[in-house]
Amino acid sequence: MITFNPSLTPSPQDYSLLTDLYELTMAACYAGEDIAEKRASFELFVRRLPEHFGYLIAMGLTQGLQYLENLRFTSDQIDYLKNTGIFDHVSPNFWSLLENQGFTGDVWAVPEGTAIFANEPLLRVEAPLWQAQIVETYLLNTLNYQTLIATRAARMRDVAGENAILLEFGTRRAFSPQGAIWAARAALAAGFDATSNVLAAKELNQQPSGTMAHALVMAIKGLSGSEDEAFTAFHRYFPGATLLIDTYDTVAAAQRLAEKITIGEAEVKGVRLDSGDLATLSKKVRSLLPTVNIFASGDIDEWELKRLRTENASIDGYGVGTRLVTGEPVNGVYKLVEIDNIPTMKQSSHKMTYPGRKQIFRCYDNGIIKSDRLALADEAIELGETPLLELVMKEGKLVTENESLDTIRQRVQTSVKSLPQGTHYITEPSPIKVNISEPLEKLRQSLIV
Amino acid sequence: MITFNPSLTPSPQDYSLLTDLYELTMAACYAGEDIAEKRASFELFVRRLPEHFGYLIAMGLTQGLQYLENLRFTSDQIDYLKNTGIFDHVSPNFWSLLENQGFTGDVWAVPEGTAIFANEPLLRVEAPLWQAQIVETYLLNTLNYQTLIATRAARMRDVAGENAILLEFGTRRAFSPQGAIWAARAALAAGFDATSNVLAAKELNQQPSGTMAHALVMAIKGLSGSEDEAFTAFHRYFPGATLLIDTYDTVAAAQRLAEKITIGEAEVKGVRLDSGDLATLSKKVRSLLPTVNIFASGDIDEWELKRLRTENASIDGYGVGTRLVTGEPVNGVYKLVEIDNIPTMKQSSHKMTYPGRKQIFRCYDNGIIKSDRLALADEAIELGETPLLELVMKEGKLVTENESLDTIRQRVQTSVKSLPQGTHYITEPSPIKVNISEPLEKLRQSLIV
Repeated sequence: MITFNPSLTPSPQDYSLLTDLYELTMAACYAGEDIAEKRASFELFVRRLPEHFGYLIAMGLTQGLQYLENLRFTSDQIDYLKNTGIFDHVSPNFWSLLENQGFTGDVWAVPEGTAIFANEPLLRVEAPLWQAQIVETYLLNTLNYQTLIATRAARMRDVAGENAILLEFGTRRAFSPQGAIWAARAALAAGFDATSNVLAAKELNQQPSGTMAHALVMAIKGLSGSEDEAFTAFHRYFPGATLLIDTYDTVAAAQRLAEKITIGEAEVKGVRLDSGDLATLSKKVRSLLPTVNIFASGDIDEWELKRLRTENASIDGYGVGTRLVTGEPVNGVYKLVEIDNIPTMKQSSHKMTYPGRKQIFRCYDNGIIKSDRLALADEAIELGETPLLELVMKEGKLVTENESLDTIRQRVQTSVKSLPQGTHYITEPSPIKVNISEPLEKLRQSLIV
Repeated sequence: MITFNPSLTPSPQDYSLLTDLYELTMAACYAGEDIAEKRASFELFVRRLPEHFGYLIAMGLTQGLQYLENLRFTSDQIDYLKNTGIFDHVSPNFWSLLENQGFTGDVWAVPEGTAIFANEPLLRVEAPLWQAQIVETYLLNTLNYQTLIATRAARMRDVAGENAILLEFGTRRAFSPQGAIWAARAALAAGFDATSNVLAAKELNQQPSGTMAHALVMAIKGLSGSEDEAFTAFHRYFPGATLLIDTYDTVAAAQRLAEKITIGEAEVKGVRLDSGDLATLSKKVRSLLPTVNIFASGDIDEWELKRLRTENASIDGYGVGTRLVTGEPVNGVYKLVEIDNIPTMKQSSHKMTYPGRKQIFRCYDNGIIKSDRLALADEAIELGETPLLELVMKEGKLVTENESLDTIRQRVQTSVKSLPQGTHYITEPSPIKVNISEPLEKLRQSLIV
């Protein structure tokens, strides 16, 4: 009996069905053809970086591995699949596989927070073909999204400078409640200081952050109070808390606050501006409130951050929402690169892939990336190179513990610092040179039909 | 003790904390000032439609109401808030409110599937101030996202025509697993025929849909088979199933299939093209496979659909992913419009709102929208007008049952058909005339300070 779940909140037990139907039909075909247990390797990568992106910051691996560790098909789920009628002609082997196995493969991946470029695998799954196939959808979902948010957050941090306070305020615009939480995680891991999302902060063991909204001023003013009375009321319970001063006249509100501070009637740690010409207003407010943190919000992105810095806006911190958590996606793909020790390659027009299990060998010059070499995984490391893909899961079990957000955050910092100057540009950045190794290029040539 | 949840999958019990911190701090301030129980009305609307959108299709109300119905703070959640230290100076009243009350207010909303325009409320919450405040974040998240997806889906259906098959394939690009499920719901409700997401299909009581991927061809070819053997193998378990024919040479694959069909060696209901010039390829494939459904996928959106139709592409169905489930958001806001029977209004520069509890009165001419009148809720209905906002929740309880997806889908069709021709345009559509009633305009003028 199928019941309608109006909240549509998937729980981790549901995740085995959180896949495209064709993953399961293909797996059933593999089972029938007796090739389901052949060892297969799939790699996850992007063909192109999103427009104006010079790099990606890999993120989402933790959630991907958690999914693989816990992948199971319950008898209810199997019954559901049987009852759709779609699988009426499959071999019973298929049901045995679903009943008896979770994910038993190996995973190689670049650690979260690593900078990577087009055609470089973020992750490789090596597993029985059917397993490696069905995990495609969830892994892509997880890594595509968090990698996008982490990269945007890293770009914003890079432009804002290390002293700016960056706050993640995107929950109301994020694409679903869970999308909001994952965005908060990726943003915090990639250099944001805090999130306003209380649940995300709780789950991530961070302190939530926030200011106040226009509603408080409007409510108290509506009840025959004033904007200043709203500020005083808020400070009664949250001493010194950041005040939103643009509900009516920003400069007038700052002026009145300054007077109160002077006569010791108010203590204010911060103010927020959410509308108007932020550069001009922030300078006016700074002249009135020289020791107060000035926060700005409203469609902030890396370009707006740069513009505000160029115009010498006097802003200490930014609340970033919409432009962090929505927009053009990272279009990662997940492609079969080897089956039963035989390298494979797709050749559709403009969608060529590199065959074989690969490794990224990175070369630095004084801490700055000089070039990457995309090579076959069994090629020898050359002098001065660092391999980026690490074994993170062995036979379905995590090889190491989950990394802390601090560890990942540290890696993002190091990664961004390692980029050549031109690769930092937020518009038309210079690409990093990714060299294709001779053995990989030879293999590719040999597979062109 | 706070534990780290690496999957970061919120469950409905967690949702009370799925809010911006400031909602809770403001609620605490209201409690301290003894105004938390004052009756407040907030309205949710967009100031502008997204670029090139002539309308929005309201969606997400079901999930919003589900949240309101179940809103509770557990003692663990309250302890967590206390332990943050942020609330050290609040009045004990605040904790009593959280402990003892769920959502006890009323909700007025336009039914899911209704076409609405800028400044028109999708929803109004009338509740004790603190409750109406803290539900802001979740309601915005829910309605913003599903309204976006529903509107995009409706635009695509409108361009594709009623006979085209539209399949939702966006899970791998959606912003989180839950984002994928909500996208599937909104797309199906707004005119898509099916989703590839098995879990979404299960929860929505729909049949999942899908074709096959390049991996199956590559795996079987890698194991010394051929593309044709891959097709035969897939059809062994899924007779007639749609085949992806562009892994190597699309036209050659179609040619070989045609020959097999002629000699009765194959039965094929559909083929999919995922790369190359879809218009040209589809015509070539049609000439070879005249009775087979041709599906196209790969960065399909309403503009691409239009282009393909203009070029007389011979395509029966479309798999739509990235351009349906990602991109620029719907920027709904949630504003206090009345407190304790007193209308309120925000006046920040360029962010004016209309005060007071409002109703949308719609006027039709032969089934086509003539104009809307945005008026105060207690204004009399005029001849020929239909009021759009309905009471959907009374004192925290649903007034009616959840609507079925079919009911909502029917309403979307009617809504889109009711738009004047110019409002259908996918680029620079003509706006619908939204008249502001005289009493509303007078009220607004009277509140300008």
